[in-house]
Amino acid sequence: MKPEIKAFIFDVYGTLFDVHSVKEKCDDIFPGKGLSISQSWRNKQLNYFFLRQLMGRYENFEVVTREALRYAIAQNHEDWTAEIEDKLITAYSELALYQEVKKVLAELKNKKAIILSNGTNHMLQSVVKNAGINHFFHSILSIDDVKQYKPTAAAYNYALIQLGFQREEVLFMSSNGWDISGAKNFGFHTAWINRSNAPSEKLGLAPDSIYEDITGILEWKSQE
Amino acid sequence: MKPEIKAFIFDVYGTLFDVHSVKEKCDDIFPGKGLSISQSWRNKQLNYFFLRQLMGRYENFEVVTREALRYAIAQNHEDWTAEIEDKLITAYSELALYQEVKKVLAELKNKKAIILSNGTNHMLQSVVKNAGINHFFHSILSIDDVKQYKPTAAAYNYALIQLGFQREEVLFMSSNGWDISGAKNFGFHTAWINRSNAPSEKLGLAPDSIYEDITGILEWKSQE
Repeated sequence: MKPEIKAFIFDVYGTLFDVHSVKEKCDDIFPGKGLSISQSWRNKQLNYFFLRQLMGRYENFEVVTREALRYAIAQNHEDWTAEIEDKLITAYSELALYQEVKKVLAELKNKKAIILSNGTNHMLQSVVKNAGINHFFHSILSIDDVKQYKPTAAAYNYALIQLGFQREEVLFMSSNGWDISGAKNFGFHTAWINRSNAPSEKLGLAPDSIYEDITGILEWKSQE
Repeated sequence: MKPEIKAFIFDVYGTLFDVHSVKEKCDDIFPGKGLSISQSWRNKQLNYFFLRQLMGRYENFEVVTREALRYAIAQNHEDWTAEIEDKLITAYSELALYQEVKKVLAELKNKKAIILSNGTNHMLQSVVKNAGINHFFHSILSIDDVKQYKPTAAAYNYALIQLGFQREEVLFMSSNGWDISGAKNFGFHTAWINRSNAPSEKLGLAPDSIYEDITGILEWKSQE
């Protein structure tokens, strides 16, 4: 028997959208290196917002994503130009939605579906609107409003402050192990969307549920 | 003309010692997978102490290193045992010293050579003693004493509190881009030991010097 969930809070990048769907655009610009650059880009993006948070040197997610791209291009021995950077950053607004997402969001109907992401408000509004899923969400929240990245407790707490829920009324969903660890540490119920069949994190913060895509989270929807 | 440096503070893992020298021991236990496991282990080790610091959930570096090893073994589809873990953790006390290190430490002679590492006191004392370089150091400092990992400002500040130097009197040396970024952010002079010919970090915190091994840092030693 699952507890009653009043707020279904979704992570965005990797969870609703496939961040490696920028691979094709990378490959158009850097033939044969699309996968390598997109993986390096994503790894460095994570590394950079972790580092900036640890150093107390906040910049927003668009800035971090641009910095990470510059590193990824250099690491792959290619030449950076402002034009290439702008083109690839645009790709971040046009990420591919995972195929089951619309159907699941439609089934959540009367429940409150919410986004809490490290992305900026502009990035989130663009990607959600381009995918045609904005009407499913009660709220789309960016940690840029408080300048504290997930997985800090302050980032998850921002959603509670804005929405007025108790942490035990929330189911938080993410494909990112670090994000699920942070949400569990904060006190949310958690569902890890383990799309890549990755090993579980060894941090002593096991998720409440593990699913291979977001369809499974519907079992947290109480009977009406 | 370099400023006068009173304290030469060294990072340890990756800077004085080659962390991938555990590869052979990994390969003995998991034939053919030594490189993959040692790389995965190191990446996850970094990821885990970053995450624990961000979540406010400190555990010491030995615990984090053990957790990261468990993840790396699972990621490589191998079976964990307590015996394997203990054997590989021991390898962390027997890391290979980079070949130029002893010569450079000997040349620093009257200058104060100091270690500031995320490792525990026990791990640091073991690896330094096993390599026969303990007599070169004025102090061997572990952030475990303050439970704040580098690259937080609190970690670098611990060295100042213990030693009584001003930050501008310090040259901080590390092979790790994130560590150099943190030290520069804190206000130390920095020398990045870029052993792997990696791209520079794109965080707006360029090091004062870049060398391919630690020999270059001798140019920071003022004339006597």
